Amino acid sequence: MTADQMRGLENIEGLIWQENGQSVLNGEALALYLQLDQMFSNWASTWKAESWKLPIFISAKELAKLDYFHSFPHLVTMPVTLDCSDENLNAFTAGQPIDASGVVNLTNLSPVQDVLTPAACYHFYVAHQSQNLLSPKYLTTCANCFRRETHYLPLQRQWSFSMREIVCIGSSDEVKHFLETWKNSLEHFFAKAKLDVQFENATDPFFNPSKNPKYLMQRLDPVKTEMIYKKSLAIGSINFHRSYFGEAFKITRDGEEAYSGCVAFGMERWLYAVLTSFGLTNLDLPQLQQKV
Amino acid sequence: MTADQMRGLENIEGLIWQENGQSVLNGEALALYLQLDQMFSNWASTWKAESWKLPIFISAKELAKLDYFHSFPHLVTMPVTLDCSDENLNAFTAGQPIDASGVVNLTNLSPVQDVLTPAACYHFYVAHQSQNLLSPKYLTTCANCFRRETHYLPLQRQWSFSMREIVCIGSSDEVKHFLETWKNSLEHFFAKAKLDVQFENATDPFFNPSKNPKYLMQRLDPVKTEMIYKKSLAIGSINFHRSYFGEAFKITRDGEEAYSGCVAFGMERWLYAVLTSFGLTNLDLPQLQQKV
Repeated sequence: MTADQMRGLENIEGLIWQENGQSVLNGEALALYLQLDQMFSNWASTWKAESWKLPIFISAKELAKLDYFHSFPHLVTMPVTLDCSDENLNAFTAGQPIDASGVVNLTNLSPVQDVLTPAACYHFYVAHQSQNLLSPKYLTTCANCFRRETHYLPLQRQWSFSMREIVCIGSSDEVKHFLETWKNSLEHFFAKAKLDVQFENATDPFFNPSKNPKYLMQRLDPVKTEMIYKKSLAIGSINFHRSYFGEAFKITRDGEEAYSGCVAFGMERWLYAVLTSFGLTNLDLPQLQQKV
Repeated sequence: MTADQMRGLENIEGLIWQENGQSVLNGEALALYLQLDQMFSNWASTWKAESWKLPIFISAKELAKLDYFHSFPHLVTMPVTLDCSDENLNAFTAGQPIDASGVVNLTNLSPVQDVLTPAACYHFYVAHQSQNLLSPKYLTTCANCFRRETHYLPLQRQWSFSMREIVCIGSSDEVKHFLETWKNSLEHFFAKAKLDVQFENATDPFFNPSKNPKYLMQRLDPVKTEMIYKKSLAIGSINFHRSYFGEAFKITRDGEEAYSGCVAFGMERWLYAVLTSFGLTNLDLPQLQQKV
């Protein structure tokens, strides 16, 4: 790793940065990571959110219902395997599986039907597909997410990272109340914690944004608010999806199209913000005051 | 899911099986999963094992040092992305990204330099590369692992699954003592817990085994002992690697080639064993008696 990449993290033991855009955590850095996730988990229980353990892969067919491949083809990472015929595997092993620069010499691949999860909450909408909810649903998970970027930075921009989400699926009013409550309580939290974080409207990182009507809609009527650390790094976001997922996955709330929204915390980015604000010692964050 | 696939798991709430060889856990099934992992984690602390959080990807260049691509090409899953030139991404989005059966219509791919982790402990040897250890090293992690199989079964055989490992890197005697201690204490544990598990010698699932000298060596001098549930499902294993990883990654113990060994617990398979033995209620497993 270069000194530049590790700026602000030089003296942090228990963080190993890898060239392939991922980090290893152990020791005090891992303890801090777990402490942060316990905090988010406690915050989620204020809403009695159900905790789920989600898969790493999501079916391409489901993601396509969100038009994901048109909107974010540059971010997609897919799990692929070699076609499993003996002939193909023999061809792979008979050659040089890896070249001198560490690139795999692929032979035929099996059909690709999955994607490495790009955002934790997508799984929730897939799992609630075609359901009619009689009350608002609150869900939470800490999931592995994957987004290919043009460059990576330790904890700040990783190919593979972890995201804690707390999600509400319900009526428009229920979702708005959920998101407003979060926004207010987080604003107080950042002030009391003396964490330099400001809320800013944002848009999703669409491919060819100027040609994408979804991007234009987000510009006209912001639905994404990011928690920006030190004016540069989004460590979390509050997202109002309107009825987008409800429509795509035919979820209803008392017979009407369901709305949804989520609060998302980038685990490694929070770790970065806390490490560069307070160092490794004595993390003592205030309580989140939240009236549900 | 078919009734046949779910045999023994019919009444288990909180388990959702997915066609792509993975499961979703929530509610009581997730609570039981976490209880099991807490138990393994407590077992690991008997050895004061350092806990690590590992990346999802492992570099192909490192895996190649283990001759992994020749030995297990049929199991390998790789993360791939589309070549990120505008021309290629435009070609991808201009066509039909997904066909009617849910298969992604790939355009050009970026060079593949990574693999989805096939076994948790590989990362430890990579991270200790070229180090000389002055005392034995005990490490533990619960990691996501990936192995492509010809068919999948809920909790029993998944494309993506979780593995808790406790690893020792040290001298031959230190590693042998570690593994023997585990074998003895686990034998007592299974008897007291009334879990139908027997230890059996096993070999790794090599490609073209009869042509692979590593397979022949394992047949002649067994180094892998599996914990077989109800005579059919390996829910864990005890592995003596001799100096295989020490040599491949130039790790020494007091100047001599390091030995290594690990105890591995398949998390979903343990969940399956416990669910089909005791159901969801009142898991009350005995203490593991282990003198280090």
